[in-house]
Amino acid sequence: MSENHHHGKHSPLSDEPFADSHPSVDDHADHIRALLAGALIPRPESIPIEDALGRCTTAAIVSPVDLPLFRNSQMDGFAVHASDLTNLPTEIPIEGEVVARAGIPRPLRAGTTVRIMTGAPVPEGADTVIPVEDTSSHAGVVTIHHGRAQGTFVRERGSDLAAGAELLPADTLLAPRHLAALAAAGLGTVEVRSRVRVAVITSGAELVAPGEVALAGQIFDANQIALETAITSDGAEVTFAARVGDNSLTLLDVLREAANVSDLIITSGGISMGDYEVVRQTLEPLGARVGHVAMQPGGPQATAHFENVPVVSFPGNPVSTQISYAVFVSPLLRDVAGLEPKKRGRRVLESDVTSVKGKRQFLKGVLTGTEGVTAISGPGSHLVAGLAAATVLIDVPEHSTHVRAGTIVETWEL
Amino acid sequence: MSENHHHGKHSPLSDEPFADSHPSVDDHADHIRALLAGALIPRPESIPIEDALGRCTTAAIVSPVDLPLFRNSQMDGFAVHASDLTNLPTEIPIEGEVVARAGIPRPLRAGTTVRIMTGAPVPEGADTVIPVEDTSSHAGVVTIHHGRAQGTFVRERGSDLAAGAELLPADTLLAPRHLAALAAAGLGTVEVRSRVRVAVITSGAELVAPGEVALAGQIFDANQIALETAITSDGAEVTFAARVGDNSLTLLDVLREAANVSDLIITSGGISMGDYEVVRQTLEPLGARVGHVAMQPGGPQATAHFENVPVVSFPGNPVSTQISYAVFVSPLLRDVAGLEPKKRGRRVLESDVTSVKGKRQFLKGVLTGTEGVTAISGPGSHLVAGLAAATVLIDVPEHSTHVRAGTIVETWEL
Repeated sequence: MSENHHHGKHSPLSDEPFADSHPSVDDHADHIRALLAGALIPRPESIPIEDALGRCTTAAIVSPVDLPLFRNSQMDGFAVHASDLTNLPTEIPIEGEVVARAGIPRPLRAGTTVRIMTGAPVPEGADTVIPVEDTSSHAGVVTIHHGRAQGTFVRERGSDLAAGAELLPADTLLAPRHLAALAAAGLGTVEVRSRVRVAVITSGAELVAPGEVALAGQIFDANQIALETAITSDGAEVTFAARVGDNSLTLLDVLREAANVSDLIITSGGISMGDYEVVRQTLEPLGARVGHVAMQPGGPQATAHFENVPVVSFPGNPVSTQISYAVFVSPLLRDVAGLEPKKRGRRVLESDVTSVKGKRQFLKGVLTGTEGVTAISGPGSHLVAGLAAATVLIDVPEHSTHVRAGTIVETWEL
Repeated sequence: MSENHHHGKHSPLSDEPFADSHPSVDDHADHIRALLAGALIPRPESIPIEDALGRCTTAAIVSPVDLPLFRNSQMDGFAVHASDLTNLPTEIPIEGEVVARAGIPRPLRAGTTVRIMTGAPVPEGADTVIPVEDTSSHAGVVTIHHGRAQGTFVRERGSDLAAGAELLPADTLLAPRHLAALAAAGLGTVEVRSRVRVAVITSGAELVAPGEVALAGQIFDANQIALETAITSDGAEVTFAARVGDNSLTLLDVLREAANVSDLIITSGGISMGDYEVVRQTLEPLGARVGHVAMQPGGPQATAHFENVPVVSFPGNPVSTQISYAVFVSPLLRDVAGLEPKKRGRRVLESDVTSVKGKRQFLKGVLTGTEGVTAISGPGSHLVAGLAAATVLIDVPEHSTHVRAGTIVETWEL
């Protein structure tokens, strides 16, 4: 708490790069898209199908086998030559049985039949299966009461898909039915897009972990869990997480560790105008771009490279962090993971809202009925419980200061 | 492959309980709902917030603290008494600084100011924060150029949410913003609905694991991965999985293991009319209900209790297994996990389809445009690649045999 007069050339109170030119949200989004372009190139990796739910295929997958693998019976019944059934009812000697298990059945002699189970290979020569309910059998002879057209209840080899045909197209987001098809074709592994590896670093000398004790002046870190779980639900992988105070040397150590295991580093806090802005003070000498984007919450924004890994830095207020992530990073991660973009909509505003001129504002809202949206809570970037109660963000354009009830506004699904 | 004449009283070829009374899909769904009622009562469990993404709260969660925890600054700037700013510009001596970290600042004396950082506690006595950009400072004195209304840029304790107020309602499906709110309130754990523990047993002497070698007559087991991943995406937990041949003693051992660790056992295969129907032959003597439901694919269906654990048994053709699960079990698991039901829709059929009279048919379909649906592949229950290419099931009513293009049909999202 001592007075602080020793600001040098880089004093954050006097040095305000980009402070006079506030890029728009779209400009900053473009900048981040370009910054991350190299980090977000999906690489193919082969993983067990057991781990592949929700992952995205990189290329079309061709079946290595015919499906079904062999000609087999669709019913429990009797495999016959259809030509033996010209006069009905008819009695045919039963020459054995074919079960669904390893083994090749003997060819079927004319004038004979075999019991056959669903899924069992249809013997060579047999061309039709008569369901057991259309027969009666006694002492090694079956009486067939109803005939069937040739080929009935025989599943031909390759009739689902021929070997060499496309089993799944490229860019398939793998659901259970896709994994079942891979399994049916004998494929125990599948090539999918690798997950983007993301490091999360939250900063602030006031932060303690939830579950610990907060002393006077301290607050609980809401940003680590918010970023980690958002990154996970956007199909990327959190490979590193740390919480740092306001010491640059510590942050440098943590950044080095993070850069070793990640394609992208996200930080929160420490980039605004104060005297203890650890992220800004650490990254600015390394060439970071630090400035204000024309938005609220989330004005202060920074980007950098650290050991060739792109760094995206958000302001530390929890609502600012979450909205910055939702606006600038989430769409990119979802895209590379093959996930659907979050829904945007157009809704009728149910009550007047005010906004700050020259800043695009993202207000907390809840959808009402099938067409409406209502702003809830306030615009403050500390209103973390307010954000939890919201289901959408209401996107108020930069030039608006008052938006009246009844106006159509754009909404972003949270 | 030897002939088999030694059927006793329980020969599946002669013994067909329920074969004459084919319950409808809705009747069987009701039966399974009742069977699982006891297994699907959500129990509350407390888990770390790090593990709680996508889980559902059991009860309303009340904040144990005020949010924000203490009165703090919204800006980097100077904490003042608004009453000291009656004539502007004015010079005020700087008496120190307050940083966002543990510590209680000294009360602010009238006629003085302190530098204050965003998030730092506002000293007792101070009632307003002047942003640094509206000031200039030199040699321990700040000149304030623009005033602000009393209270500006001061976030009052509890202004987001008061201690004791509801932070999250009951039955909240936890998204990152909810976890952030819990974290901000210092909560490192959260009480959520326990996951239903499900055992998956696939049966069939012909089955081998994908990735292994299939001999002639063998096929790859597509049902284990299909059921496991569907259960996981429906918010339940697979606690046991096994693949068995056609030996009842082995199945009994596996069922015992499964019953020890699960609330629900799902089996596939071995319940139709053949001679080697291991699930039927094992469970029928224990009181299983085995029969045919008026549906296709998926006619043969069975239910049982094994050591007080409900057992739901599906036919083994992979399309039958997947559709049976989707129709009878998935909605129940999603409901208890707090997940949205899968979407049903009404669409215009784009091409004629035929169906079997007396059986409700679930055809493979793909949505076309915003209003249409087209049937793809065939009705066969072995068409696992066909099902992979579908995005919906087309629900053709029991009484229909021909449905013409242009008819409105119900669709089930896969």
